[in-house]
Amino acid sequence: MMLKTHACGTLTKADVGQTVTLNGWVQRRRDLGGVLFIDLRDRTGIIQIVFNPDFSGDALAIADRARNEYVLAVKGKVVERDAATVNDNLATGEIEVRVTEIEIMNAAKTPPFPIEDEVEVDESIRLKYRYLDLRRPEMQKTLMLRSKAAKVFRDFLDGEGFIDVETPILTKSTPEGARDYLVPSRVHPGEFFALPQSPQIFKQLLMVSGLERYYQIARCFRDEDLRADRQPEFTQVDIETSFLSQDQLLDLMEQLVVRLFRETNNVEIARPFQRITYADAMNKYGSDKPDLRFGLEMEDITDIVKDSEVKVFASVAAGGGVVKALNAKGCASWSRKELDDLQPFAARYGGKGLAWVTVKEGEWRGPIVKFFKPEEIAALTEKLGVEEGDLLLFSADKKKVVADVLGNLRLKIGKDLGLINESEFKFAWVVDFPLLGWDEEAKRYVAEHHPFTRPNEEDLALFDTDPGQIRAQAYDLVLNGYEVGGGSMRIYKRDVQEQMFKALGFSMEEAHEKFGFLLDAFDYGTPPHGGIAFGFDRLVMLMTGRTNLRETIAFPKTASATDLLTDAPSEVDLSQLQQLHIRTMPKPGKQPEPAGAASSANN
Amino acid sequence: MMLKTHACGTLTKADVGQTVTLNGWVQRRRDLGGVLFIDLRDRTGIIQIVFNPDFSGDALAIADRARNEYVLAVKGKVVERDAATVNDNLATGEIEVRVTEIEIMNAAKTPPFPIEDEVEVDESIRLKYRYLDLRRPEMQKTLMLRSKAAKVFRDFLDGEGFIDVETPILTKSTPEGARDYLVPSRVHPGEFFALPQSPQIFKQLLMVSGLERYYQIARCFRDEDLRADRQPEFTQVDIETSFLSQDQLLDLMEQLVVRLFRETNNVEIARPFQRITYADAMNKYGSDKPDLRFGLEMEDITDIVKDSEVKVFASVAAGGGVVKALNAKGCASWSRKELDDLQPFAARYGGKGLAWVTVKEGEWRGPIVKFFKPEEIAALTEKLGVEEGDLLLFSADKKKVVADVLGNLRLKIGKDLGLINESEFKFAWVVDFPLLGWDEEAKRYVAEHHPFTRPNEEDLALFDTDPGQIRAQAYDLVLNGYEVGGGSMRIYKRDVQEQMFKALGFSMEEAHEKFGFLLDAFDYGTPPHGGIAFGFDRLVMLMTGRTNLRETIAFPKTASATDLLTDAPSEVDLSQLQQLHIRTMPKPGKQPEPAGAASSANN
Repeated sequence: MMLKTHACGTLTKADVGQTVTLNGWVQRRRDLGGVLFIDLRDRTGIIQIVFNPDFSGDALAIADRARNEYVLAVKGKVVERDAATVNDNLATGEIEVRVTEIEIMNAAKTPPFPIEDEVEVDESIRLKYRYLDLRRPEMQKTLMLRSKAAKVFRDFLDGEGFIDVETPILTKSTPEGARDYLVPSRVHPGEFFALPQSPQIFKQLLMVSGLERYYQIARCFRDEDLRADRQPEFTQVDIETSFLSQDQLLDLMEQLVVRLFRETNNVEIARPFQRITYADAMNKYGSDKPDLRFGLEMEDITDIVKDSEVKVFASVAAGGGVVKALNAKGCASWSRKELDDLQPFAARYGGKGLAWVTVKEGEWRGPIVKFFKPEEIAALTEKLGVEEGDLLLFSADKKKVVADVLGNLRLKIGKDLGLINESEFKFAWVVDFPLLGWDEEAKRYVAEHHPFTRPNEEDLALFDTDPGQIRAQAYDLVLNGYEVGGGSMRIYKRDVQEQMFKALGFSMEEAHEKFGFLLDAFDYGTPPHGGIAFGFDRLVMLMTGRTNLRETIAFPKTASATDLLTDAPSEVDLSQLQQLHIRTMPKPGKQPEPAGAASSANN
Repeated sequence: MMLKTHACGTLTKADVGQTVTLNGWVQRRRDLGGVLFIDLRDRTGIIQIVFNPDFSGDALAIADRARNEYVLAVKGKVVERDAATVNDNLATGEIEVRVTEIEIMNAAKTPPFPIEDEVEVDESIRLKYRYLDLRRPEMQKTLMLRSKAAKVFRDFLDGEGFIDVETPILTKSTPEGARDYLVPSRVHPGEFFALPQSPQIFKQLLMVSGLERYYQIARCFRDEDLRADRQPEFTQVDIETSFLSQDQLLDLMEQLVVRLFRETNNVEIARPFQRITYADAMNKYGSDKPDLRFGLEMEDITDIVKDSEVKVFASVAAGGGVVKALNAKGCASWSRKELDDLQPFAARYGGKGLAWVTVKEGEWRGPIVKFFKPEEIAALTEKLGVEEGDLLLFSADKKKVVADVLGNLRLKIGKDLGLINESEFKFAWVVDFPLLGWDEEAKRYVAEHHPFTRPNEEDLALFDTDPGQIRAQAYDLVLNGYEVGGGSMRIYKRDVQEQMFKALGFSMEEAHEKFGFLLDAFDYGTPPHGGIAFGFDRLVMLMTGRTNLRETIAFPKTASATDLLTDAPSEVDLSQLQQLHIRTMPKPGKQPEPAGAASSANN
């Protein structure tokens, strides 16, 4: 077997004169008057190899049998190309290898799609033939960047004294949160393991264990309905520390992120990152993960229009809602169709409508303008900085709806107007999240983050008066409008934990039923601790400029949680189910089958 | 909150005079005439902190409330101890911290066992309170070494161009091998994912993808009956390469192991590692994972005794069995009881008995000596190097039984006689494993490694004549009698794969049913490739001198696959099972329950 001495894409003019052995795949072949040119590809790139009767001997005839994606081993001499044949599109375009020996290591059928970037193939075909899809240079680059990013995370955390601890995948079903994947136990009939939604409980236990600094690049599982940026199994960089304040932790994490982008993307991120409270983020951007690469902040004008003749403004204000406005600079020229399209856009986010005003030739125009009093126009002009050419957009509704409508409108306008620098990485911390949210259905508070999130020290008194106002020591890291990380300081004092459970509406006894061993653990000397988890898949997606998580995962699943390559999930032998003490249920609408045939009921 | 400026165990005389803030746990406290001494522990070690009315003020009264495992924050000055009070047992024994401020960060109940090494506690208690067990210094050291070992693996592999790729945990049930853990699908009723027994198929697909060098520290799952060195989920360092020969790969892996032991254990391992064929290992040591820290090789004496008057020797030899002997040097003095105990020992490994001879005062003694002819004694004396004081041990049986009996006897004697240097790490490669084994029950050949293992080139012709004799390009790395790694070169040529499947007794059509997508992938230009997987848990076990895998895993499971800490597996809500389209089956011996009550049938 002729094994490589060099890699295709790494040869340069400095290698001219050397005899090299290369292994790789046939990217393409051209026969020019009896001289055969093959582009040979390996993971480092492509080089042209030449077979000529003058120097290749028998190798020419053998090479002539090679087709695209054949695996070749060739030996030959690196030579400089004639100036006329230099290929500037190829990193190795100044040289070629004159082959004297060849071995066809393996043949290949014609692949279902060409192995090159920018190829238009249905994603389901790419996923079915993932092993070929991954041969495409951009997929290889993505996997390499992902590997590099993981390495930088580890190098940084290792250097800071974090200990990489593996926590169980076969664990216990958790009482809160998303749906668990379950694993039936063979040894314990009727019992199940659950795959972890995150190592949350274990990382807190490791803090109780006195490990002080823990990390893990951890696989997590959520049996949720999927969308483009969700996968049933996903990877998070999971971090927990003891004896650090929130500020100390965020500072350390900023250093981590800066190093990550420097070493994998060659991009310098400025520190410190902007910090914005949850309240400000919602007020200004209508989102807890604002894209801060551009301004276009929304303004609360409720006070200005609360007695307005614009009935919807006045009635919303009277009903406890808010009226907010966006000033889309220079958009007065939008067509009537563009303005009409705003209504369905607003409706998509739950809005009942969207009022607009254009400012043209010094004049406010639009259906609602006639209802504005002069002093309202004056106040709005000042508040919104209105100038010639502006388009004012108004939403009046419940706070949440206005935030959704104008927040999404802001993103759309930002994109449409080209306000976004696509090559910028704009990080910010969103802090001071609410500790509790009111669940209308259950008529009780629920934990916004999780029941162990530490309240802000100065808000503790609100447990007795207005729990909904308590801010948490919880934080998200946002990047260009995506949440790429999040975490919190944890409750470590028993009295605070009791107040928290009380606010959530359950007693310590009920809490013990839900969180038994964790609460037990907290009794034995728990240090102040807190942590964060980075969404690794999403970070890699943003680092590689992708918009689809599946592009960042070697073997992803589809939106219906299927692996098109291996055809998982699949039916299994009845005997396997019997060993696990379970049976499948007949599909809805089918007659129940006798127990023994339960498995075949699912054909 | 008073957060640490220094770590307890890292303070030295160089810090004398500094004011430091420490956070840690109370290891123990002593009150000597109104002066309170507390040993404060964090993950770096222990330091003595002192509370004295002269300099501690209010802090003394607060400290007086602290009990073992309370979490303290203290501020104070580092001072040198009086010569008389220096504690040589403590790394920080020359200094102490005079406390001026204290905060009790948290209280602690009295732990169920003391937080110190060498403590005698039932393992089930340790596992239930794992968060306290992990506070013990030796457990913390183990977790830190494990983290470090993973880092060294990664650093080496990253440096050699290996790409860390995560492969799916939710994957497809495999047709061969151990029992799978299954995961029912909510979206696809009646279908199941399986947890991977190894990333074998994916790593080979990544080679088809042209990634060339892959690694992953991968979680793997086998639903097997457990023992001390097995866990239902375990970790392997999984490696695959293209375009390397077996020798090149083993050489690279030796470099990896040398660096691993140098950087984590501070031990220098000599290279190259010994290579021993499977045949030699079985013949000399009766094991394919020989402990090579000592000799005591067994000798085949079948030829010498095949016509012996010792009837069992002659009849075994005539029946195609073997007769082998161990010479236990200097063991002629064994008592009659020790010699008698050899019989049940042999029986445990399937042997019908064990013959022995002692050599005392120049004379052979023992029940069988009278049947030996003088020329047999002469031949045995030469073959076994018999001298005064020797104990000769004979086993006559089928080859496999003799190997088991004498192999295990060799280990026992090696241990008993102190022939083993316990601090030595003795690596070897076992190579040339048989490709196929004969399955007596199924009356067919089965793959010894797996169906994609590449045969030795020079043995290919044996497919037509004697497949059982084919040697594989498969190798195990053994360390001190444990298999710590194993792998093979893979078949990449279609014609060889077809021969292999034929030898295993199934057609390409049947093979396609079993391995469909992998065989499809092999058609598109598969490079020559091969790999290895290291058993990470077992390696860490040996590196830390443990004998129990559970000591190397943060949150292990018991021999009955239970997590005593979280109480997993456990029952789940019926609604969860309904969403997954499964129901549990009544326990054997119970009446079937109506479908709706299936879950409660398992109380």
